[in-house]
Amino acid sequence: MHRVRFQPSGVTTRVEAGKTLLDAAIAAGVEIETVCGGRGTCAKCRVIASGGLDEPTHLEERGLTPEERARGYRLACQAVVRGDVAVVVPDESRVSRVSILSEGAVREAPLAPWVRRHAITVPEPSLEDQSGDLERLRRAWRAACDSDLPPLSLRALRQLPSAVRDGEGSVTLVLANGTGAAGHGQMGPLHVIRVEPDGAPNRLLGIAFDVGTTTVVGYLVDLETGEQLAVSSLLNPQTRYGDDVVSRIDYAGREAHGLQTLQREIVGALSAIITATTSQAGVETDDVVAVTVVGNTTMQHLFLGISPAALAQSPYVPAVTDGVCLSAEVLGLGSYPDAVVWALPSIAGWVGADTVGVLLATGAHLQDELALAIDIGTNGEMVMGSRGRVVACSTAAGPAFEGAHLSCGMRAADGAIDSVSIDGSVTWHTIGESAPRGVCGSGLVDLVAEMLRSGLIDATGMMQPGEALEAMGQRALAERVIQNGRQRSFTLATSEEGAGGRPVVVTQRDVRELQLAKGAIRAGIEILMHELGVTAEDVRVIYLAGAFGNYIRPESALAIGLMPRFPNARIVPVGNAAGSGARMALLSRVILAEASHLVREMDYLELSGRPDFQDRFAEAMVF
Amino acid sequence: MHRVRFQPSGVTTRVEAGKTLLDAAIAAGVEIETVCGGRGTCAKCRVIASGGLDEPTHLEERGLTPEERARGYRLACQAVVRGDVAVVVPDESRVSRVSILSEGAVREAPLAPWVRRHAITVPEPSLEDQSGDLERLRRAWRAACDSDLPPLSLRALRQLPSAVRDGEGSVTLVLANGTGAAGHGQMGPLHVIRVEPDGAPNRLLGIAFDVGTTTVVGYLVDLETGEQLAVSSLLNPQTRYGDDVVSRIDYAGREAHGLQTLQREIVGALSAIITATTSQAGVETDDVVAVTVVGNTTMQHLFLGISPAALAQSPYVPAVTDGVCLSAEVLGLGSYPDAVVWALPSIAGWVGADTVGVLLATGAHLQDELALAIDIGTNGEMVMGSRGRVVACSTAAGPAFEGAHLSCGMRAADGAIDSVSIDGSVTWHTIGESAPRGVCGSGLVDLVAEMLRSGLIDATGMMQPGEALEAMGQRALAERVIQNGRQRSFTLATSEEGAGGRPVVVTQRDVRELQLAKGAIRAGIEILMHELGVTAEDVRVIYLAGAFGNYIRPESALAIGLMPRFPNARIVPVGNAAGSGARMALLSRVILAEASHLVREMDYLELSGRPDFQDRFAEAMVF
Repeated sequence: MHRVRFQPSGVTTRVEAGKTLLDAAIAAGVEIETVCGGRGTCAKCRVIASGGLDEPTHLEERGLTPEERARGYRLACQAVVRGDVAVVVPDESRVSRVSILSEGAVREAPLAPWVRRHAITVPEPSLEDQSGDLERLRRAWRAACDSDLPPLSLRALRQLPSAVRDGEGSVTLVLANGTGAAGHGQMGPLHVIRVEPDGAPNRLLGIAFDVGTTTVVGYLVDLETGEQLAVSSLLNPQTRYGDDVVSRIDYAGREAHGLQTLQREIVGALSAIITATTSQAGVETDDVVAVTVVGNTTMQHLFLGISPAALAQSPYVPAVTDGVCLSAEVLGLGSYPDAVVWALPSIAGWVGADTVGVLLATGAHLQDELALAIDIGTNGEMVMGSRGRVVACSTAAGPAFEGAHLSCGMRAADGAIDSVSIDGSVTWHTIGESAPRGVCGSGLVDLVAEMLRSGLIDATGMMQPGEALEAMGQRALAERVIQNGRQRSFTLATSEEGAGGRPVVVTQRDVRELQLAKGAIRAGIEILMHELGVTAEDVRVIYLAGAFGNYIRPESALAIGLMPRFPNARIVPVGNAAGSGARMALLSRVILAEASHLVREMDYLELSGRPDFQDRFAEAMVF
Repeated sequence: MHRVRFQPSGVTTRVEAGKTLLDAAIAAGVEIETVCGGRGTCAKCRVIASGGLDEPTHLEERGLTPEERARGYRLACQAVVRGDVAVVVPDESRVSRVSILSEGAVREAPLAPWVRRHAITVPEPSLEDQSGDLERLRRAWRAACDSDLPPLSLRALRQLPSAVRDGEGSVTLVLANGTGAAGHGQMGPLHVIRVEPDGAPNRLLGIAFDVGTTTVVGYLVDLETGEQLAVSSLLNPQTRYGDDVVSRIDYAGREAHGLQTLQREIVGALSAIITATTSQAGVETDDVVAVTVVGNTTMQHLFLGISPAALAQSPYVPAVTDGVCLSAEVLGLGSYPDAVVWALPSIAGWVGADTVGVLLATGAHLQDELALAIDIGTNGEMVMGSRGRVVACSTAAGPAFEGAHLSCGMRAADGAIDSVSIDGSVTWHTIGESAPRGVCGSGLVDLVAEMLRSGLIDATGMMQPGEALEAMGQRALAERVIQNGRQRSFTLATSEEGAGGRPVVVTQRDVRELQLAKGAIRAGIEILMHELGVTAEDVRVIYLAGAFGNYIRPESALAIGLMPRFPNARIVPVGNAAGSGARMALLSRVILAEASHLVREMDYLELSGRPDFQDRFAEAMVF
């Protein structure tokens, strides 16, 4: 036994002669980068070592420059211990070297995927040692790692005999945290999901999914480099069975096999995205070994095939909020069948894993400064807090912002008016510069802000009659007001301007829908401030998540009173932060574990039961 | 908190007021019988209790006689703690009360299945407590059991919301030791494989399989009573692809998808047995929640779909000898999909889980007296030892005993001659009293013993010419000797007697095959004695396992020298002891754990590498 001392950590361990420095590092709990799984080919595990070591191998001669070798650099997976050794692990060889920085994320995290490789050599059998392949692998593991071999999945067991023979004893194990079928909530124990012969060309890939009610996005990444290889999105095929969450819950409960149908549809869409992204990147679907999924609570239930029925009626209870960890095969997902799938935890029935993703991506729950994160989609989720305490709530008043339930509303697609200016005359911009077909969420906020500024509506939201506008000298606007019995409306784009000769008209009811929506969001934000005992002055950063948050003009949002004025806060659009959070959880077991911790620690406020919410809501309806 | 003291164990625990005595017993680790899972309906959990307890419930009034109530009897699952309590757990309420005593087993074991039920009440949600169903279940579990809720399988998660609502909060969990997809070797942690609403009519069933090369037998049992409900057997459908183990290994390796085909065939046969036995017993296949499987090492590999290729050539190495624990769904078995399947561990490439089953059923490894267990099928496995040391070996020379490779041989089926007497004239008995079609293993041993006794063959196994017999005055026998060139044979049944007018003739080669077989078995037994340093006088009990062991006449076996004379040993035919061992492992987690321990502790002797085996083999060929 020889002593191996690691710096800068100062940890010392004892290993037998013949072990590598990497073996010693694993035994000592010192994390050294090993992209190739210890095969000597990636040259990432470089350390500066002195003492009793064998001469450098040819792989070290290939992987290190003569200058490096002269300075004592060695590859930890190659250098064989023959006496006491002193090792310095330079910064660049530590596992935390590579950081995840996803588009939309404002936070860095160390690359530490929960699926990884480990190279190991299984001794040959003989008539004197007739132990089975698994038994010899177990002994080799114990000798190298000083711990019990993690259990193998059936598939890995089936791969073992040929991998051992094809690799002439040198095999690579793919190890995953989490468990095949039964674990949830917490990161499960390590197990082996694949055994490859040495030299197999397999890569180690993962995919993160953001399952929206409307759109599903998948991000394919290389787990060993953190590199994003491809992105692909699809319309959520469940849309066919209902546009919004409530109609899907209804479908799942009403129709025979409704739940199974919705589960199959979403799993089919995710599988299609796996096929699309791997083909885009020129890699194999069978190398996708890790998957994360975020979505609202209903989407998480439907993805797992768990009934969300109780979510639709008071007291709005989910079946499961825990993160759930399963094998892809159990779900029917088209990756490597033993890929470990983590459906991230939800916070409550109406604040889902997508909001958890937003928190993971922004790190709002770990910062000293008070933050507000808003994700407005079909539903509006709001989270406020800082290190120590985070509070979330949700309002169901959001559909106006996605263009639903409005006569002039549409999704943020080609032909949608996404910004409006009313300044004597009316001008607007459409997505794709096409002829206007309707107004999307951000356009609607702009529109109402401008209507308010120009006097087209008053503080109660009442649209003014043409005569009143004429009296104000707003003749051009007055001409656009249509009086149809008691219903008044405003022509945003004329039939000459509109696509297909159809005008885009905003009705009094459309304005009322927006008022309801913004009132609910505003009241929710105020309840959060009240709950935390803070004022608008205390808030330092506003994260606007989701497509709506990315496109909304903050000044218009403030003009309509969607949120209070936060005099000391900067506004940060974070794009698809839910998806970024899912990617970070895929690439770091620290982040994944944080998700479970987070949902346990944070508070959820149910607004529907609170009289103070009703009061504030009524007030907040006024502009 | 109140103190509850249990006698006779003397364990004391503290529980909150409002808990039941059963809760307290679980917390204290005192095992009390609860067939109904704590619902108050089975009245098995009777204890004698005094101290601070609520009045008896109506379920106790129903389940206990007035005399019992007067003597202080209570049902532990009903009696609610309100102060300090003293409890006596009578013998009949202890979990170990029911013993397993399977046909063919010579050992009793306590009933302690590794799948069991637990009744629990999940509090209702409200707007003040909107926690999800799983979260409320977890809290209820923690309060009742003072431990973490075991993880739920996906299927159990999917059952949870409706079970909680259908049962108005009262649900029964089906808990299993072992893991869904990844565990092997050791008993895995507890997990929940089913959630039923209170009052669901489900039973808790298990099935034990003995997978022979030729025949597959399944034993359906009630896990809560130990009662055997049905037995059914089938020809192993793999027979179509090869009669013996070696030809199946060859098929698995040679044909495209050969391994998958053999796996599918055997799983199909086991599923058919599940259907047959449950239908026979009038119960549901979906209530079969636990499965054990024993077979020789190749059968275990093929059942799991793991390549047995390396078993067929030196050094005869298996891929896996560990017990493997999986969900039925992963294997495609037609039970409850989350049923836990244990393929029992093997000892070596040619001494399989069936031999482990023989040891479990006989308990030979736990006794003080020296035992020899012999299981002769296509292969001959021999185990010798006592508490402290057990040694096993295997010889490949067995097919003669199953009637294979013999001109006159056949399986022990209708029309097989199973006993022979030669005493001037020739008489025999056939299975089913039918016209003879051939000779089965036990008949062959009888036949050769009688041929030897009557002088038809000499000590070297040479069949005597007709003239020599006439000279000995054995005229009737001499007429039955046929000389065909240099090949001599003996007519056992004439064409008038034989089925379909075909005679049953034993050739010189048939006698040679038997000599090879018995020589190998005898030599193996001698090597075992040599290895243990014992003599034939030291052996106290001989267990003869398998159909052959059940039907063989011990005096004939001794006459041909299949085994040495053991002057101090009793001979115990144990029938299908492998199957009995599988049943015991199904009904007792203690026995199951013993299996893993056993294979680690015992020694296996590879005979093919030993010159002393060759010497003894040559000697043992002589009669």
